[in-house]
Amino acid sequence: MRRQFAGLSLAVAAAASSIAFMTTGLVTTAAANDDIVLRGMGSFHVGGRIAEVSGKDVRTIVRVPGGPPSKLDPNGQFQVEQMYVQYFLPKTRKGKLPLLMWHGGGLTGATYESTPDGRDGWLNMFLRFGWDSYLSDAVERGRSGFASPDVWSGEPIFLNYQDPYERFRIGDGEGSWNADPAKRKLLPGNQFPAEAYDNYMKQTVPRWLSTDEAVLAAYIALVDKVCPCAILAHSQGGIFAFKAAEARPDKVKAIVAVESASAGTIANAGKLKNTPVLMLFGDYVDQHPRWAAYKKIDMAYGDAVKAAGGTVDWINLPDIGIKGNSHMLMQDKNNREIADVIQKWLAGKGLVE
Amino acid sequence: MRRQFAGLSLAVAAAASSIAFMTTGLVTTAAANDDIVLRGMGSFHVGGRIAEVSGKDVRTIVRVPGGPPSKLDPNGQFQVEQMYVQYFLPKTRKGKLPLLMWHGGGLTGATYESTPDGRDGWLNMFLRFGWDSYLSDAVERGRSGFASPDVWSGEPIFLNYQDPYERFRIGDGEGSWNADPAKRKLLPGNQFPAEAYDNYMKQTVPRWLSTDEAVLAAYIALVDKVCPCAILAHSQGGIFAFKAAEARPDKVKAIVAVESASAGTIANAGKLKNTPVLMLFGDYVDQHPRWAAYKKIDMAYGDAVKAAGGTVDWINLPDIGIKGNSHMLMQDKNNREIADVIQKWLAGKGLVE
Repeated sequence: MRRQFAGLSLAVAAAASSIAFMTTGLVTTAAANDDIVLRGMGSFHVGGRIAEVSGKDVRTIVRVPGGPPSKLDPNGQFQVEQMYVQYFLPKTRKGKLPLLMWHGGGLTGATYESTPDGRDGWLNMFLRFGWDSYLSDAVERGRSGFASPDVWSGEPIFLNYQDPYERFRIGDGEGSWNADPAKRKLLPGNQFPAEAYDNYMKQTVPRWLSTDEAVLAAYIALVDKVCPCAILAHSQGGIFAFKAAEARPDKVKAIVAVESASAGTIANAGKLKNTPVLMLFGDYVDQHPRWAAYKKIDMAYGDAVKAAGGTVDWINLPDIGIKGNSHMLMQDKNNREIADVIQKWLAGKGLVE
Repeated sequence: MRRQFAGLSLAVAAAASSIAFMTTGLVTTAAANDDIVLRGMGSFHVGGRIAEVSGKDVRTIVRVPGGPPSKLDPNGQFQVEQMYVQYFLPKTRKGKLPLLMWHGGGLTGATYESTPDGRDGWLNMFLRFGWDSYLSDAVERGRSGFASPDVWSGEPIFLNYQDPYERFRIGDGEGSWNADPAKRKLLPGNQFPAEAYDNYMKQTVPRWLSTDEAVLAAYIALVDKVCPCAILAHSQGGIFAFKAAEARPDKVKAIVAVESASAGTIANAGKLKNTPVLMLFGDYVDQHPRWAAYKKIDMAYGDAVKAAGGTVDWINLPDIGIKGNSHMLMQDKNNREIADVIQKWLAGKGLVE
């Protein structure tokens, strides 16, 4: 990546900026190589609680080789279940509300940064579109940290190499992965940068199956802090986006659910009657039972929102001629094209100036 | 924080930009509220290895409530010990080399982002100075993820509320912390934003005591990828900076060691004879035995570098009139003043255009 930028003189950068790309019908145009001009950037943590631990033995440890010994006390008050959020505020703001980007299971906010093969991710694209953007790491993932077994029951799960390959519609389902890349069965026409699959695996992080309540509480704390807003959520993040909107219907003004892996609570779906929803799915969905099942859950939820008078738009990308998308749409080779689809939908809801 | 930015019109931003701050003798001036203009930003992971696990029972799990069941196989190949790196490339580049920022123990790259009380951290300051900046999360921390107990021996340690308060020269050593903020014994004149100590605790993450070798290997992989460079390292990060420089003396062109908690290997110190080093310490050091011990280790290492013909500069901040600094200097209320001291030193070594 250094190679990519090291020789980039200002003159060349200026020339590149002038080659603007334009998608037909898109309200906002943005040059793919434009500078990113920010009026502010930073990070913070939200939510969480204090947990008390007692009755454990105090140890003496050496924290660094050769350093002085020090006390490690497993008792006392511990900060747990907070959530990390990094924000970027473009100088020229065109999104009318902050855009919150929530990642899927076993991942972090890095989902939306560079793709595994080093291209721009959706963060850079939506910044260039002019959205105040907030990327978070769900509770217990990434920079949010995690609590000790003294505080949480349950253990984290770890994904082996073949798991996302077979489950995320990169390979053709179970049995498609092989340690030898030449023997892997990629879904035909797949847009995922499969040659950089190793880098994708480096992005995966452990997750717990027992922390949903804490994850949702921190997301709601974020909504209380920075919204009204629009939420762009992927996979497991979709559940939390819908549930956060059910809890704060006046603050969540739009949801873009990218392959939401399950949805909100049907009984509460009516809360979203004033929150426009986009349900977006990639390719190969109906031929893989897991994804067909998630889609069915999302459709039932969407129907319940509509029955209550809400607006739910549905985009199956292959239906509009965009083919080959895996579950990791924001990292696929045509991720820019999909960002444009989302931006157009947001503009259509009056959320772009 | 939204409140801070929401009403900021472009006109106001332009006015704020014109109020440039200037530190006497500083080579580069930068306006505290200038826009941050980037020619690129993104993230990647480096290093790591494949670990094999076998002989464990395969489980069936439900990943999200109401979702379809799926297989969780604890066997197979696992990606472990990779490191997360986020980079920001200013349009107007004035640092002659990339600047790598390495955090201390129990923390992540967030150390250098916003301070616990929401001010700009050193990342924003060094970006405005014009440095290509690379923030990383050490192996097993933050967005680098961590390996399962099937792969790593040892367990993470967790810091309770009082630990950093008493150990990082915020409070006056052991016994200075109290659950009631009014009863805490802050070191007199302390610059740490103690009123935001809760937010600081939210930044802390678990760490292992058994992963030093893997941490160093990933840092060296980063050096191999983006250097020649300068490294700005804090606390435990200092050890890794010195050891990475010993391993790649031709690639590490300067080290700013901010309260390095231990140093490199004395026998290898001569490798740094062409790598200028700044050793920087805050206040209250000599009166706290732990820090006096670390300082002594750093001095011995610095003496060994000098004995081999190298350059080691030493700044005890109180000696130059900068008082009250805790171990978390980059988050202290006078963090801008210390950033200026570092920038001036880097300029003095010919690393600023």
